[in-house]
Amino acid sequence: MAVISLLTDFGDRDAFVGIMKGVIWKIAPQVQIADLTHWIEPQNVMHGALILGQSYAYFPEGSVHVAVVDPGVGTQRKAIAARIGKFFFVAPDNGLLTLPLEQSERLGEPIHVVELNEPRFWLPEVSKSFHGRDIFAPCAAHLATGVPLDEMGSRLDSSALVRVAIPKPQPIKGGWQAQILMVDVFGNLISNLTMDDLGGQAIRSVRIAGVSIEQFTRTFGEAPPGSLISMFDSSGYLSICVVNGNAQKQLNVRIGEPLEVITG
Amino acid sequence: MAVISLLTDFGDRDAFVGIMKGVIWKIAPQVQIADLTHWIEPQNVMHGALILGQSYAYFPEGSVHVAVVDPGVGTQRKAIAARIGKFFFVAPDNGLLTLPLEQSERLGEPIHVVELNEPRFWLPEVSKSFHGRDIFAPCAAHLATGVPLDEMGSRLDSSALVRVAIPKPQPIKGGWQAQILMVDVFGNLISNLTMDDLGGQAIRSVRIAGVSIEQFTRTFGEAPPGSLISMFDSSGYLSICVVNGNAQKQLNVRIGEPLEVITG
Amino acid sequence: MAVISLLTDFGDRDAFVGIMKGVIWKIAPQVQIADLTHWIEPQNVMHGALILGQSYAYFPEGSVHVAVVDPGVGTQRKAIAARIGKFFFVAPDNGLLTLPLEQSERLGEPIHVVELNEPRFWLPEVSKSFHGRDIFAPCAAHLATGVPLDEMGSRLDSSALVRVAIPKPQPIKGGWQAQILMVDVFGNLISNLTMDDLGGQAIRSVRIAGVSIEQFTRTFGEAPPGSLISMFDSSGYLSICVVNGNAQKQLNVRIGEPLEVITG
Repeated sequence: MAVISLLTDFGDRDAFVGIMKGVIWKIAPQVQIADLTHWIEPQNVMHGALILGQSYAYFPEGSVHVAVVDPGVGTQRKAIAARIGKFFFVAPDNGLLTLPLEQSERLGEPIHVVELNEPRFWLPEVSKSFHGRDIFAPCAAHLATGVPLDEMGSRLDSSALVRVAIPKPQPIKGGWQAQILMVDVFGNLISNLTMDDLGGQAIRSVRIAGVSIEQFTRTFGEAPPGSLISMFDSSGYLSICVVNGNAQKQLNVRIGEPLEVITG
Repeated sequence: MAVISLLTDFGDRDAFVGIMKGVIWKIAPQVQIADLTHWIEPQNVMHGALILGQSYAYFPEGSVHVAVVDPGVGTQRKAIAARIGKFFFVAPDNGLLTLPLEQSERLGEPIHVVELNEPRFWLPEVSKSFHGRDIFAPCAAHLATGVPLDEMGSRLDSSALVRVAIPKPQPIKGGWQAQILMVDVFGNLISNLTMDDLGGQAIRSVRIAGVSIEQFTRTFGEAPPGSLISMFDSSGYLSICVVNGNAQKQLNVRIGEPLEVITG
Repeated sequence: MAVISLLTDFGDRDAFVGIMKGVIWKIAPQVQIADLTHWIEPQNVMHGALILGQSYAYFPEGSVHVAVVDPGVGTQRKAIAARIGKFFFVAPDNGLLTLPLEQSERLGEPIHVVELNEPRFWLPEVSKSFHGRDIFAPCAAHLATGVPLDEMGSRLDSSALVRVAIPKPQPIKGGWQAQILMVDVFGNLISNLTMDDLGGQAIRSVRIAGVSIEQFTRTFGEAPPGSLISMFDSSGYLSICVVNGNAQKQLNVRIGEPLEVITG
C-alpha cells in the first residue's frame, strides 16, 4: 500500500487538508496518508523546504510527498511532479524540493521531473486559489496508484527548477559563522551547521545573542535541568537547547540569528 | 474501502478524537478516517454547518461524514443518521446538516433520515456528555461496514430536521448587501455572496469596514503583494483578501461584518 | 489490520509525528495509525499518563499504544514494550503506563514487559534525542506485524517499572478532599474523585476557589446556559463545568487546585 505525505501551510482550523484527503481517497482508496505538518509559516517556502528535507527519507520507498506552500497559486508558476531518488514529490515549482534535489544530485541518483499539464489527472473544475485540492492531491493519488510520471505531463530539466538558497555556514578563523534556521516545538534552536561540516572537529564553545555556551553534549541527559547546551539534533544539525527548558524563550532569538562556533 | 470524515469542536489537546478512531476501528478495521477539522468554535453549530457544507462533496461516494458540535448532548435533541444524495451523515439533529440537505433538495436527490435509537449499535455504556464516542462513532462505523440505515433507528421526515438559518445576501440598488461568514487560516474573509448569486454581473467595488476595494481579481497572482482585493474563493464565495497578507488583521473585522458589493 | 496509537508532547508544528508514521508504514504498511494527542505538556509525564489512561481501552484488542513523553531520552532510562491486559504499549520507563498497569493488576490480567534492547528492531542509526523515531516507532511497527515481545528484548518484572504517583482523593468529615487533575478543551475541570470512590453517596455541594457549587447534574442540558455545575464526565471523574461556557476561565484555577466535595 503506497503512502502519501502532506506538508502545507493550511493549518488545521479550516477543512482544506481533510478535503485533500477526500480527493485522494476517491482516486486511491487504499493509500495511507501521513500529515508531515500543516503549520509551515504562511507562504514561507524556505521553512517548507527545510521541514520536507528533514522528513522525506524516513518514508517507504515510492512514497509520494505532497508539498503545498504556494504563494504563486494561480500565476504562471509551474505545478510539478518528480521522482527524486527513491521518492515521488508533487509541488509547485518554487524551491520546496531543494533539499531532496541537492541530496540526490550529490548521490548521483536518478531525477525525473514533469510539469503537471495534463488536465485529465486534475479535478474536473480547477479553482484559481486551491491547487492543493484541484491539482496536487489528485495527481499525487494517481501517482500512488502507479500512473507513470510521463503520462502526467511534459518532461522538465531538473536544472531549470526553482531552488531556495539555504544559507550555508561560513568557515571563520578558529571556527564557523552559522545562523539559526528553525525553532522546534521545545524551543530548541536549530542552526545550519551540520556534523558533516565539522568533520572531526570538536566544539569548544558557541556564542549567540551575547551569551557564550561552553557545554557541548551528546544528549539532554548529560547536563542538569536548566543548563544551556549545544548538541547535534536528531537530523545532525547543531542546536542550542535548554535541558528540560526552552532556549528560544531564554535567549529571545529568532530565525536568522547568527552564532559563532569555536572549534579546536 | 469506505471513508469516514470527522468534524468536531474537540480541538486536539484532549484525546477525544483519537478515542473516536479507536471505537471506529474496533467495528470497521479497514475504514479510512479523515479529520475535516476539530477546531469548530466550541458549540457553534453554524460554523460547523458551513465547514461541512464546503467539504463533504469532495469525498468518495458512500463516505460517512460524522459531525459532532453538540451543545445539546445529554438532552432530548435527537441523534440522527442520514443518506443525503451520495453521502452518509451522522450528527446530532441541530442544523449541522443544513447545507447538504439544501443542496440535495435543490437537486432532487433522495434523502433518507433515521433517529439513532437502536442501542445495539452504540457502545455498551453510554455517557451523558460524550456521544461522539458512545453513539456517533460506533454508528458511523456500522454504516461504513454496510449496515442499512433502517436497521439503525426509526425513519424521520427530513422536513422535520432542525436547520440553521445561514444569512443570505440581499439585493440592494446597484448591488448586494452581504456579510462575512468565515475567516480562513490565511485571514481571508469569506462572505455569503456566491458566484451563482451574481449570475453574470461584474463586481465594480466592495465596501467593508469603511474601505472601498476596487480590485476584483481571479487569482492572488494578478495583484502585487499587499494589495487588498476581492475574488471568488475555491468554493465560489466572494472573499476579501490581502495578497500574501492577512485581510482579517488589516481590516480588523469579524464574522458577521457587513459588506456592500457594487455591481454593473 | 492492527492499530497503533500515538501520544507525544511533540505538537504539530514540526514533522516529528509524521516522520514516526513514515517509519511505521515502512515496516507495517497496512497498520492504521491514530493520534491520541501530541499536546501533552512538554515533558509532563503525569499528564501523558492521565490521557493515556482515559483512552487506551477504547481501541481494538491487540492495539499498540506508543507514548513518548521522554525527558530522560538519551540517558539510562529504559525503553520498554509491554502487553498489559488486551493491549500492547511502547514507551520509556518513566511512569507513562501507570494507569493501564494499575488497572490490569486490579483485574488480575496478565502483564508481560520487556526492555527494548534488541537493536535489530530499531532504525539502523539511533540518535541521542529522538527515540520516538529511532526506537519506539519501529518497535511498535514490529509488534503490530506480530513479532513476539520476547524477541524484542529481555524480560523485566513489572513491579520494577517506574510509576507516577497520581494524587488520590482523601475522605474527610462529611465528604472528600480532592484536586483538579486536568482541564479539557471546553474548560471543564476534571478532578481525581471518581464515581467509584463515592459508591452510592450523593453530592450535596462542591467548594472550589472560594465558590460553593450546589448544582450537581447528570448532563449539561439539565441546567441553563451559564450555570456552574458539577457532574461526572464521560470517564467517570467528577468535573466542574459551566454549561455552554468555560469553568477554567470563570474560576481562574489551575491543575492541582483543591476542591472539597460535601456528600450525604
